Amino acid sequence: MAATERPVRRKVVRAPITVVEDGHVTRRRDRLATEEPLEIRAAGPGQEPTSVAVTMRTPGDDWELAAGFLFTEGLLSSREEIDSIRYCELDEPAEQQYNVVTVSLRRPFDAEALRRNFYVTSSCGVCGKASIDEIEVRCEPLPPGPLLAPAVASGLPETLRGAQPVFDETGGLHAAGLFDPDGGLVALREDVGRHNAMDKLIGHELLEGRLPAADRIVLVSGRASFELVQKAGVAGIPILCAVSAPSTLAVSAAKRLGMTLIGFVRGGRFNIYAHPERVSLADEG
Amino acid sequence: MAATERPVRRKVVRAPITVVEDGHVTRRRDRLATEEPLEIRAAGPGQEPTSVAVTMRTPGDDWELAAGFLFTEGLLSSREEIDSIRYCELDEPAEQQYNVVTVSLRRPFDAEALRRNFYVTSSCGVCGKASIDEIEVRCEPLPPGPLLAPAVASGLPETLRGAQPVFDETGGLHAAGLFDPDGGLVALREDVGRHNAMDKLIGHELLEGRLPAADRIVLVSGRASFELVQKAGVAGIPILCAVSAPSTLAVSAAKRLGMTLIGFVRGGRFNIYAHPERVSLADEG
Repeated sequence: MAATERPVRRKVVRAPITVVEDGHVTRRRDRLATEEPLEIRAAGPGQEPTSVAVTMRTPGDDWELAAGFLFTEGLLSSREEIDSIRYCELDEPAEQQYNVVTVSLRRPFDAEALRRNFYVTSSCGVCGKASIDEIEVRCEPLPPGPLLAPAVASGLPETLRGAQPVFDETGGLHAAGLFDPDGGLVALREDVGRHNAMDKLIGHELLEGRLPAADRIVLVSGRASFELVQKAGVAGIPILCAVSAPSTLAVSAAKRLGMTLIGFVRGGRFNIYAHPERVSLADEG
Repeated sequence: MAATERPVRRKVVRAPITVVEDGHVTRRRDRLATEEPLEIRAAGPGQEPTSVAVTMRTPGDDWELAAGFLFTEGLLSSREEIDSIRYCELDEPAEQQYNVVTVSLRRPFDAEALRRNFYVTSSCGVCGKASIDEIEVRCEPLPPGPLLAPAVASGLPETLRGAQPVFDETGGLHAAGLFDPDGGLVALREDVGRHNAMDKLIGHELLEGRLPAADRIVLVSGRASFELVQKAGVAGIPILCAVSAPSTLAVSAAKRLGMTLIGFVRGGRFNIYAHPERVSLADEG
């Protein structure tokens, strides 16, 4: 993959606010998490780029986000398919210069497949079971390990928050953290969108050549949705932990994919919703 | 609009879980928020329905969600344009029967405009300013009122939580609540997706013929994103409150649209990020 300079973008900006506390009014400056649209494009050799998606994201790690998104959505299957990732050079206002990323592939990008796939789904109707069927074919079977100790699981949120400087400043950013089985933080990505934080994290591992992440645990700062289970499954991550609640479809998908799904990791306790065999449980009350 | 029966869907289901607390293991049943895909289709007289979007949502209020989504995305401009809203009757498994909603319009639905609009956006590049420009043309100017007392603003989250039975059961649902200027709850909608909760709420008001909601305040349970400001603006709601943080683009959009944006409404305090003139502030420290 060609190396290109990535400009530094500000994840946080300061803005004047009015604080009202028990009827008392003060004015000060506060820090806000940056939100800007990113358009993700893909192209094969000699092809015009196709616009694949526009997502509202926090600037930074944009290449990882683009690569991770294409990968977890099934439009890219390995790092070796990527020729280069670049910001577009547009004859346009400066503020738009870094909001379009093009992923150039070494093989043709099937733009029609995007649309075809959408319409096929449509004509068949949709349901949770069909959604799980669709991602199952894109996921390799998950490995039996790693084995997670309860004390390690309980400690993950504190490690995540300790490493999340932007959240501390703004309270406005979701995070996804990748951990080793001893609870050591391997990588952390933040974004105003929780799916984007996960895509950045997975894109990072993809570009580093470390997927499938078979010996890893991922923790997300919010709830566990179907899409987060899907993304973890495509990346080969066998354990997904969430600080808050999972949905029904997240649990069904985790069960089918063989993924350990843990929720409500808070204050020394957590709930296991699927595949508890990767948690080292001693006694049973 | 034709009246059609809406089946009752379960917003919450019970599932067996493993609880781990300080190393001690118990098994019990827990309640999970339901997540299922919904496909939204639109059609004019004599037209085949066009698939507009698939969203992961909590079943219930599906017609409001479909109508609210089309309205806040600028694909529908009034209740009078709607001829009927129906679930599709498909020759398919029962679980798919209630996951496709078609909104039939009294005027042609321009399916090509959907695609054209997407590609025009693409070729111009994207940026926050352009995103705000785009929604500004779809929003009527917001009225100067209502005037919100600080004590009323502080009390909104408690009223919302008190009326949110499903969240209490699962911890897994976002909510959007519509209030009058005295803090009385007018309507509440819940969903695993916070944008869906807002679309359901706005769809409800649209179908009841109560838009623009010029004398209303909306409170969302999570963060205030650009898209939530957009949706409130299109519905003509002049005050948006959030329990958590807004993003930079949410603040910029609120400023431009003339919307009062309040964040971190918690424990007797809140922050005003845009247009404080709708909050009755007495002293200043």
